[in-house]
Amino acid sequence: MKGPDTMQQDHIHSAFDADLSSLRSQVMTMGGLVENSIRQVSKALNRRDSERADRVVAGDVEIDKLEELISRKAIELIALRQPNARDLRTAIAVMKIAVSLERVADYSKNIAKRSTVLTHSPPLDIGIGSIKRLSKAVRIQIKHVLDAFIKGDVERADFVIYRDEEIDQMYNALFREFLTHMMEDPRSISSCMHFLFIAKNLERMGDHATAIAEQVIYMITGTLPTDDRDKNVMTDFDEYLT
Amino acid sequence: MKGPDTMQQDHIHSAFDADLSSLRSQVMTMGGLVENSIRQVSKALNRRDSERADRVVAGDVEIDKLEELISRKAIELIALRQPNARDLRTAIAVMKIAVSLERVADYSKNIAKRSTVLTHSPPLDIGIGSIKRLSKAVRIQIKHVLDAFIKGDVERADFVIYRDEEIDQMYNALFREFLTHMMEDPRSISSCMHFLFIAKNLERMGDHATAIAEQVIYMITGTLPTDDRDKNVMTDFDEYLT
Repeated sequence: MKGPDTMQQDHIHSAFDADLSSLRSQVMTMGGLVENSIRQVSKALNRRDSERADRVVAGDVEIDKLEELISRKAIELIALRQPNARDLRTAIAVMKIAVSLERVADYSKNIAKRSTVLTHSPPLDIGIGSIKRLSKAVRIQIKHVLDAFIKGDVERADFVIYRDEEIDQMYNALFREFLTHMMEDPRSISSCMHFLFIAKNLERMGDHATAIAEQVIYMITGTLPTDDRDKNVMTDFDEYLT
Repeated sequence: MKGPDTMQQDHIHSAFDADLSSLRSQVMTMGGLVENSIRQVSKALNRRDSERADRVVAGDVEIDKLEELISRKAIELIALRQPNARDLRTAIAVMKIAVSLERVADYSKNIAKRSTVLTHSPPLDIGIGSIKRLSKAVRIQIKHVLDAFIKGDVERADFVIYRDEEIDQMYNALFREFLTHMMEDPRSISSCMHFLFIAKNLERMGDHATAIAEQVIYMITGTLPTDDRDKNVMTDFDEYLT
């Protein structure tokens, strides 16, 4: 039979576990909203649908609130329940993942605003397809990394980090495409600039997927993966400088 | 005379205070490195000095390490010492400020990389002065907000938030300057694009100064300032779209 001390411990543990599990599901809810925000903003851009874009902007408030809630709950958990090493790591990871997701949503909101501005200019005949593909690739990265988080799947998290290189390549190709177009047709410069900032926002979202993957690995293994790629490497359009 | 319990309490408090005070001075050290990074990268850009730019890139490692150290220590403090509400707020604020400072340093590193690429292209005859002024304004914002942090000065933090509007205006003016130049001289497009990304990085640094100011206010008053400006508002070059 368990003594009263052990029972007390069990009680504390199960309350802690319940809190942690509720935090984890809040992260998944937040992740779902962020994925949807990326999907919607891509549609808004393709269809020149500024009402949809407005909904993306408005929806960001809820995501911000969830981030605040998750951070507060995680801190409370750490402050009040003195978690063991692994639970502490999970609480910290949850907090950092929420911060990254909030930033991804911010980029989405920025794209939504640019897409509304773009509805006032003639459509470009280039780049839309590439932007759509990049957006989809980024959304899939977010989806995979959330799966890795909830399943505690290090391999999948590793895969997300590995795949970020592809996102960067897509971004660089897009960059070249728009830059060439700007040079050939200077009247398109301002529209192309919007698309370039949109592409950059998507590429940065991809970096956050990587940051989340690193937190997932830290949560499970207790160490951050070694950084053998420099994510800030500045590859875009070096070759265009004369 | 104090009983043993009170003495025990005092002991815990003074150990806590010592830890918190060491955290605060680590934030100031980090802030000093970040300020210097902004100063150096601006010089590197003006003088087309790629060795200086390389040092900025290399120096970012130390800033990253400080951020990790501060986050770890703050979490330990929260986990082990069960701080009261105000100390908890300070520990959280310290952590968030370190994250913002780290991002500012990342932007600095990005600018350093672009400045090196720019040394391979003919110098532009526009914009350098405006970039220099924007960079200085941002550095002063960081300086003020660190002062506000260490002195617990809400008014100064408020002032930093207020001044961010000026940074945004400088950025918008710069944006128009470069965009006009690109349209007039398409051969300058790729150099101008680098400068535009540099300007955008500086403007984002300014947003982080605001985020730090908000954390300072939260630390002191327990509430975040109401957000009556939308910092993500997308003002750049709307007027250029036809």
